[in-house]
Amino acid sequence: MLCHVGYVFDGYPVVTPTLYWREGDAIYWHGSSASRALRASQDLEVCLTVTHLDGLVLARSAFHHSANYRSAMIFGTAHIVTGDAEKLARLEAMMDRLCPDRWGALRPVSAKELKATHILWMPLDEASVKIRSGAPVDDEADMADDVWAGVVPFALGFGQPEPDDVTRAAGRVAPAVTGRLTRRS
Amino acid sequence: MLCHVGYVFDGYPVVTPTLYWREGDAIYWHGSSASRALRASQDLEVCLTVTHLDGLVLARSAFHHSANYRSAMIFGTAHIVTGDAEKLARLEAMMDRLCPDRWGALRPVSAKELKATHILWMPLDEASVKIRSGAPVDDEADMADDVWAGVVPFALGFGQPEPDDVTRAAGRVAPAVTGRLTRRS
Repeated sequence: MLCHVGYVFDGYPVVTPTLYWREGDAIYWHGSSASRALRASQDLEVCLTVTHLDGLVLARSAFHHSANYRSAMIFGTAHIVTGDAEKLARLEAMMDRLCPDRWGALRPVSAKELKATHILWMPLDEASVKIRSGAPVDDEADMADDVWAGVVPFALGFGQPEPDDVTRAAGRVAPAVTGRLTRRS
Repeated sequence: MLCHVGYVFDGYPVVTPTLYWREGDAIYWHGSSASRALRASQDLEVCLTVTHLDGLVLARSAFHHSANYRSAMIFGTAHIVTGDAEKLARLEAMMDRLCPDRWGALRPVSAKELKATHILWMPLDEASVKIRSGAPVDDEADMADDVWAGVVPFALGFGQPEPDDVTRAAGRVAPAVTGRLTRRS
């Protein structure tokens, strides 16, 4: 759910982390800083990159050390989501992505809040996807070396939900987000 | 150890994921794609961003939902590390960061491998650091709502090392990277 959005501001590159979600052939993200840049220029070219680091690849030589990962670089022109109904629909989709079944339990979003919400999007037209997986690839001459070679995998997990003070005092039951989020991520 | 490096290429932003490491007041990263761009221009302005996503912040209203995170955006001019001795010293530092005590067990890096290694660096002179932590911040009027509010923390962990076929057949003992990497990350 984390992406890094790059754009050019005054000729310099800027890379900001933010949450993204996908709906069909479009990608959306929270973009208050990028939307400032977008208001300054008419068309904001962006590169939105999502990376999952899956493991460290420990090879028999320093040179062949690597990382297992999956990354997508998405290129395009960013647009601001406008219109209250449209923004509301996108916010609901975002919430469904982050925490399913929660939207309906929350009070309605106010007009003032909608106004302060900055959502950007671009079509998924141009992307570069890279994947590295599996064992290290070593030189044949190094295969007999007395070195442990293989992969140390990474795993991103969710910890125990931490209620805030009021929620704890009220004894509310934590939402079952952990399992659901894990399955979706 | 993962960063996202943004630079401008032909007027367009490019954001590539890569591994980084720090030595004193300089930051280094593996940069074959960026070094291509660097050879095309003389000075390559970059924004290198490192982000740790620490948790989902579930508030009582959609608007106040957020994420706990720590991020650093580092701005500057990228330089290529040149000279065999210099590149070798940086590679060793990188290895010590990724997997302590491993460098000495590996065969020496060849001249050909050094030539094919692209390391970039920039000084840690200009950076923007952002942190969000702790419980959700809700509107006073929402505090009595029957909603679970709090934080669902993320944790990045290392799984069981997976030896490659030759290593498994030889019965080599996995390096104790897991605990050490966790402590360092």
